[in-house]
Amino acid sequence: MSDARTTDLYEVTMAMSYLREGMTAPATFSLFARDLPPGRGFLAAAGLESALDHLSGLLVGPDDAEAFADALHRPLRDLQPLLGLEFTGDVRAVPEGRTVLAGEPLLEVTAPLPEAQLVETYVLNQLNHRTTLASKAARCVLAAGGRPVVDFSLRRTHGTRSGFEAARAGAMAGFAGTSNVAAATALGIPAVGTMAHSYIEAFPTEEDAFRAFARAHPGPVTFLVDTYDTEEGVRTAARVLRDLGPAVHDAGSAVRLDSGDLGALARHARTLLDDADLPGVRITASGGLDEYAVDELVASGAPIDTYAVGTRVGVSADAPYLDTAYKMVEYDGRPVMKLSSAKVTAPAPKQVFRGPGYADVIALAGEPAPDGTEPLLETVMRDGRRTRPRATLAQCRDRLSADLAALPPEARRIREPVPPRASVSGQLGDLTARVRRALEERTSAAAGLP
Amino acid sequence: MSDARTTDLYEVTMAMSYLREGMTAPATFSLFARDLPPGRGFLAAAGLESALDHLSGLLVGPDDAEAFADALHRPLRDLQPLLGLEFTGDVRAVPEGRTVLAGEPLLEVTAPLPEAQLVETYVLNQLNHRTTLASKAARCVLAAGGRPVVDFSLRRTHGTRSGFEAARAGAMAGFAGTSNVAAATALGIPAVGTMAHSYIEAFPTEEDAFRAFARAHPGPVTFLVDTYDTEEGVRTAARVLRDLGPAVHDAGSAVRLDSGDLGALARHARTLLDDADLPGVRITASGGLDEYAVDELVASGAPIDTYAVGTRVGVSADAPYLDTAYKMVEYDGRPVMKLSSAKVTAPAPKQVFRGPGYADVIALAGEPAPDGTEPLLETVMRDGRRTRPRATLAQCRDRLSADLAALPPEARRIREPVPPRASVSGQLGDLTARVRRALEERTSAAAGLP
Repeated sequence: MSDARTTDLYEVTMAMSYLREGMTAPATFSLFARDLPPGRGFLAAAGLESALDHLSGLLVGPDDAEAFADALHRPLRDLQPLLGLEFTGDVRAVPEGRTVLAGEPLLEVTAPLPEAQLVETYVLNQLNHRTTLASKAARCVLAAGGRPVVDFSLRRTHGTRSGFEAARAGAMAGFAGTSNVAAATALGIPAVGTMAHSYIEAFPTEEDAFRAFARAHPGPVTFLVDTYDTEEGVRTAARVLRDLGPAVHDAGSAVRLDSGDLGALARHARTLLDDADLPGVRITASGGLDEYAVDELVASGAPIDTYAVGTRVGVSADAPYLDTAYKMVEYDGRPVMKLSSAKVTAPAPKQVFRGPGYADVIALAGEPAPDGTEPLLETVMRDGRRTRPRATLAQCRDRLSADLAALPPEARRIREPVPPRASVSGQLGDLTARVRRALEERTSAAAGLP
Repeated sequence: MSDARTTDLYEVTMAMSYLREGMTAPATFSLFARDLPPGRGFLAAAGLESALDHLSGLLVGPDDAEAFADALHRPLRDLQPLLGLEFTGDVRAVPEGRTVLAGEPLLEVTAPLPEAQLVETYVLNQLNHRTTLASKAARCVLAAGGRPVVDFSLRRTHGTRSGFEAARAGAMAGFAGTSNVAAATALGIPAVGTMAHSYIEAFPTEEDAFRAFARAHPGPVTFLVDTYDTEEGVRTAARVLRDLGPAVHDAGSAVRLDSGDLGALARHARTLLDDADLPGVRITASGGLDEYAVDELVASGAPIDTYAVGTRVGVSADAPYLDTAYKMVEYDGRPVMKLSSAKVTAPAPKQVFRGPGYADVIALAGEPAPDGTEPLLETVMRDGRRTRPRATLAQCRDRLSADLAALPPEARRIREPVPPRASVSGQLGDLTARVRRALEERTSAAAGLP
């Protein structure tokens, strides 16, 4: 099942024209990011499985045709040719969790032209959104340098569904948990979270609040210590934790700092906890954190054990979208490209060969793999059906973990990362030059080779 | 129906403790933006109806309790006290479409403490997301100064559901249409869109493409003219439009510019069209537009008739979230507040009185309205039930339109707007000072008045 109406209207108007003209030969569209946003040294591919769900379930039903007719102010019979349309094409794509660079196809669709066109909006949406979130989350994991990172973003993501995807992106990147109960239970990842400032305020004293919380929740607890005075809060937490005994305070209990100078407060809290003979009590930091803040705190040596990242990560605040495009690169055997302005695209179906150290080569799909390289795009759908089971979250996480480990240092960097640049194979370069020449020779003429 | 699990885990742990302690007295929580993001002179309130849907449908069912138990690694019986919980409280809120300023409550919930706490995450998510998008869209309408604006954002919003909300936010702000078919038909707003570059490339020539499109779509058409050479594209479009006759070219047909120097290209296109005796053919601009770009184009006098805004508006790229908070301000009759760091919040339920020219006063809920002012918060839910029908899109649009018309010039400005600052009533100021003194006198002690 899928919603064929979740599309830009122009996909429909174009498909209607293609069908009218009998233009149903195979077309290949390539989805890629033209450039990486500033602050990104790589992208973590995500959204493929959801895009494939859409493709395999696509069916233009009577209700969809009626919606299209309404939108176009056309009689329903004009939409008849679209009725019953399904996606019958092939998809080659980079598996979720792999890293990609600017210009590298994340996905290529080859299908009868009206089908390949009609799916543009949905597929772009899914890959753009989820790759944006996974890339941001992966940077948080790099910044934390092995310390656990957890997701607190649900309250300010772009809707609750996007909150779910933020939790999933975090899990794929290696986060240790999420505050999002729905996501945690659906994805089988740890749920985390204990108390808000309002909880403390509802009790006569902070100490009353901590003791009440421990009564309701036997086992390890995390006390929020910055509602009134943070130092006093830590002292109170320490007193209560000591009373609860080592079965609680040495079992993963923590204090949480949510405001102020987190580095300085963490240092002071660590001293207070150690002085209270509570070396096993951990320190969690939260409050407007993203990979930039985590990086600074880690670099400063702040004794923070767990980083809870929220809004800025869940909306990828510094780069909330990617400059993705879904461009036709071949139609009916003719390589095609767009010439105008700066948005030139290279023609023909492609493959990306990755050599050691991210020595990536963007090549024609048919080229043999250079020695020592592996192809990034794999066939994931044929004739509208998946060629393999859905990737599990664990598989995606393992792929991303491996690719992150192999990133060059300048691409891993949190501030001003330098992404590796893929090179272009000789064959692709030659073809691009030939198609461009042919197009320039007859501007506004044929968009293919002579 | 609602998903009780779409929540941060800590709402659950706190509610469990409140129920265990018998702390079910009424609490009031206030939802507000602490500050406006840079680049915002006002906020357009949105998300209330969806938040009320959640509240009126909330029910912790057996599946939810099981999910909570799983998330907490607790036996199901420990969640028994939460089972069957519904929202039975009252809500006062600013109706959707009204403008609000920093510190002004968008919504206040008064309910038994566990209920008021449990709904925090969902309510914050809805109001934050939709107010973010509506505020961005409203700025686009201001920038366009009466010229039609349409939404092209679906392909890069944070998921398809957020694309729907971006279309709705645009419609609320007064957009003339959306490319999103699902949103257009569900919301009863115009759907817009014609062709992509790939469409042009699929034909032997640009002219073939335009003629084929007109065959499939009788009536006004919009030709995309920048696939190869924009000047040539406009000439070709003009030729085809003249052949189609005035019933097409004078009926709302247009050329669309999607790349390059849009102002210069529009001027040149206008000249070419006028020279071809096609003064009725309009010019649509698209391609990375947001209110900043629209503002510049309008100021430059570019002859652009319709602005299609996309990604940057659909994700509110320059301010993808708001600094919203949901803070307890009263529990069991005691005004409460948080002291630590910079995040001080004022206690007690509030009202906002708006005088002419956005002379807003944040006051205690019980204060009489100063002469010549109107209260912004209205009672929208009592005992868990709506007190009025859902607001229609048209109502929200009319409210926003009226509030935008009354904005001071410096708040309307697109670049470096200066938002009006609400003042605080004498009574609220006095109460804040008294509660703060009481708290400071006994840090880590009672959070209420003596």
